[in-house]
Amino acid sequence: MAVISLLTDFGTDDEYVGLVKAVIYGIAPEAAVVDLCHRIDPHDIAAAAVLLDHAWRYFPEGSVHLAVVDPGVGSRRKILAVRRSGQIFVAPDNGLLTPIFVGDEAVQIVEVKNRSLFRSEVSRTFHGRDIFAPVGAHLLKKVPFETLGPPAAAEDLCCVKLPEPVLTADGSLTGTVVWIDRFGNLITDIAGAHLARLDPCGRRRDLVIEAGGRRLAGTVGSYAAAAPGEALAIFGSRGTLEIAVNQGSAAETLGCGRGDPVRVLPADSG
Amino acid sequence: MAVISLLTDFGTDDEYVGLVKAVIYGIAPEAAVVDLCHRIDPHDIAAAAVLLDHAWRYFPEGSVHLAVVDPGVGSRRKILAVRRSGQIFVAPDNGLLTPIFVGDEAVQIVEVKNRSLFRSEVSRTFHGRDIFAPVGAHLLKKVPFETLGPPAAAEDLCCVKLPEPVLTADGSLTGTVVWIDRFGNLITDIAGAHLARLDPCGRRRDLVIEAGGRRLAGTVGSYAAAAPGEALAIFGSRGTLEIAVNQGSAAETLGCGRGDPVRVLPADSG
Amino acid sequence: MAVISLLTDFGTDDEYVGLVKAVIYGIAPEAAVVDLCHRIDPHDIAAAAVLLDHAWRYFPEGSVHLAVVDPGVGSRRKILAVRRSGQIFVAPDNGLLTPIFVGDEAVQIVEVKNRSLFRSEVSRTFHGRDIFAPVGAHLLKKVPFETLGPPAAAEDLCCVKLPEPVLTADGSLTGTVVWIDRFGNLITDIAGAHLARLDPCGRRRDLVIEAGGRRLAGTVGSYAAAAPGEALAIFGSRGTLEIAVNQGSAAETLGCGRGDPVRVLPADSG
Repeated sequence: MAVISLLTDFGTDDEYVGLVKAVIYGIAPEAAVVDLCHRIDPHDIAAAAVLLDHAWRYFPEGSVHLAVVDPGVGSRRKILAVRRSGQIFVAPDNGLLTPIFVGDEAVQIVEVKNRSLFRSEVSRTFHGRDIFAPVGAHLLKKVPFETLGPPAAAEDLCCVKLPEPVLTADGSLTGTVVWIDRFGNLITDIAGAHLARLDPCGRRRDLVIEAGGRRLAGTVGSYAAAAPGEALAIFGSRGTLEIAVNQGSAAETLGCGRGDPVRVLPADSG
Repeated sequence: MAVISLLTDFGTDDEYVGLVKAVIYGIAPEAAVVDLCHRIDPHDIAAAAVLLDHAWRYFPEGSVHLAVVDPGVGSRRKILAVRRSGQIFVAPDNGLLTPIFVGDEAVQIVEVKNRSLFRSEVSRTFHGRDIFAPVGAHLLKKVPFETLGPPAAAEDLCCVKLPEPVLTADGSLTGTVVWIDRFGNLITDIAGAHLARLDPCGRRRDLVIEAGGRRLAGTVGSYAAAAPGEALAIFGSRGTLEIAVNQGSAAETLGCGRGDPVRVLPADSG
Repeated sequence: MAVISLLTDFGTDDEYVGLVKAVIYGIAPEAAVVDLCHRIDPHDIAAAAVLLDHAWRYFPEGSVHLAVVDPGVGSRRKILAVRRSGQIFVAPDNGLLTPIFVGDEAVQIVEVKNRSLFRSEVSRTFHGRDIFAPVGAHLLKKVPFETLGPPAAAEDLCCVKLPEPVLTADGSLTGTVVWIDRFGNLITDIAGAHLARLDPCGRRRDLVIEAGGRRLAGTVGSYAAAAPGEALAIFGSRGTLEIAVNQGSAAETLGCGRGDPVRVLPADSG
């Protein structure tokens, strides 16, 4: 049986995640359920989109992802299902799936409207339990994607603005801290491909990374390459530039928060 | 294999929940384990009872529920198993199962005493691991309910007082905030059936809801029906009246906490 | 399918644990995954070692344990797999497995080096996802232990100093608070066998327990044996002496923290 992942802002203090699983197991008892993250800040659609953008790539083919950050629950907002690379994503039409359906890769999109796949009684406030869970479980049971509802076109859907580093006039690249993890690591939106823009001729040259008023010389190969308590830059587990402190918290040490800029510039510049 | 749910005050900072699952899987490797909630305040039996009262209805037939909020662990308090509507509930005899065995529906109750279903060594402080987990797993493996121990009668069991809205002399209904969720929603004990008392003749008329010194005109159909930051009343996922703030926290905005009153009155009254 | 447990300092606010599970299920879809604990303080190898020391005994034979508290991730630190009593432990070579491989029991140890069992791309910062998860899943799928890599000898491995109570000159035993749980219970490293040292002749005599400036007369059989709010000593679920407050927090009441001493002395001594 395939994997079903849950990405929500429900937290884990209430019964909400448990009830989603109860409904899933009621339909698909063999499901392998993965709690991807339930600690998205309430209603923070963009953070969920950024997290999902890279996380789904680690799931096996056939996985179903329920992404429920849904301030519009119970209103007339649509529910979408998107199929891409053999995986299926179900989420409200509020931009959460922007990174899944925007881009060059072929996707199929439907609006989820087939009420025979919902719980018979649908509450006004908890579609996670009453719509997303049963739809996801039915997908695990191989209900055909097309039966969920009519096709939808990407250009008609809500989008969120995804963070994107900017090449500035002075030849530096400015990205953004998009996530701070439990260790206080500052995770940015600057991928390796972005850095190639700083070095279009392919000449290898060192880089300087600026964050929180600190200048770091280049990236290192492991956290332990810096002395304990020292800041460093490294390509992290999302494949993007990350500012960390060896055995400490970069967020605390550098006083940085989500949304703060991180700048990368050639070592020989100012 | 059926579902087994866990409802505890163990939190998730320690190894306690993990050890319960280790024991369950040791006996019933195919179990589908659902963490219903582990964030009940330590020893808060009444909160667990209220949560369980509605949550079990979303589980499939054959589910087993372990409810371990157990300040009397190791003392002479009994352990109960209750069968109702094809589901089984195991909990200390401290009132946690009050909403399960009180009422009109037929239930079977036994005292859990069959030590051959326990771990061979039973600690004084962790019956969740040493008694509840193996008993629950054996139930998943279809050990007959009657083998758990001798029958018990509901009238001999501990009860907790469950919240119940009160119809007051002035014709209004006063309920209580019984839970505050991660979003700051104030979940009350006022169900739709209670509101019918305000309107015995079946004439439809509007209601006013009072909470935290604020008056709200009637209920709405979705959080988004109020402006962002505005308070609203809605029938929530437990089927009861809920006070919320669209994209905000009603607990913070209204300064309300658990146990606070919520009053419902006809719109044409004072 | 056997059980795989996860013991980490990842927390549950990020996607890290979810991605470990995604990779496990991709290889071993039938795995029973147990979150043993993810709230180890960041980089606190000793706390993880102490927790693992007793927890693994509750898992069924054939279980695989991934213990990832790994400040040296990406550096040249080794990864170890240890087989003991039919269970397998995989962890960085940083001392985390000290209680598993130190002692009298026969163990097999290998260095995990077989890259064909890793994800094809291994990041510098997240070996939990890229090495531990796939190795653990392959072990569940019965990849032979010996194929993980070459044998290693216990004397070449990193060790952490494990807490150990000390018999002092005045005839008392001094242990340490090694863990404080959600309930505020102070869990010590003093096992029943240690107390036998106070009473080598086997004469039964009462003991006094001193913690946070308080003297407690002997141990009790249940939390409820003390009045609500009163401190007590009890043998807890780890099989060691625990200081608790009935329906309260010993950590708060006694003002004790991790690392604080707890002293046991014969009742007839000053």
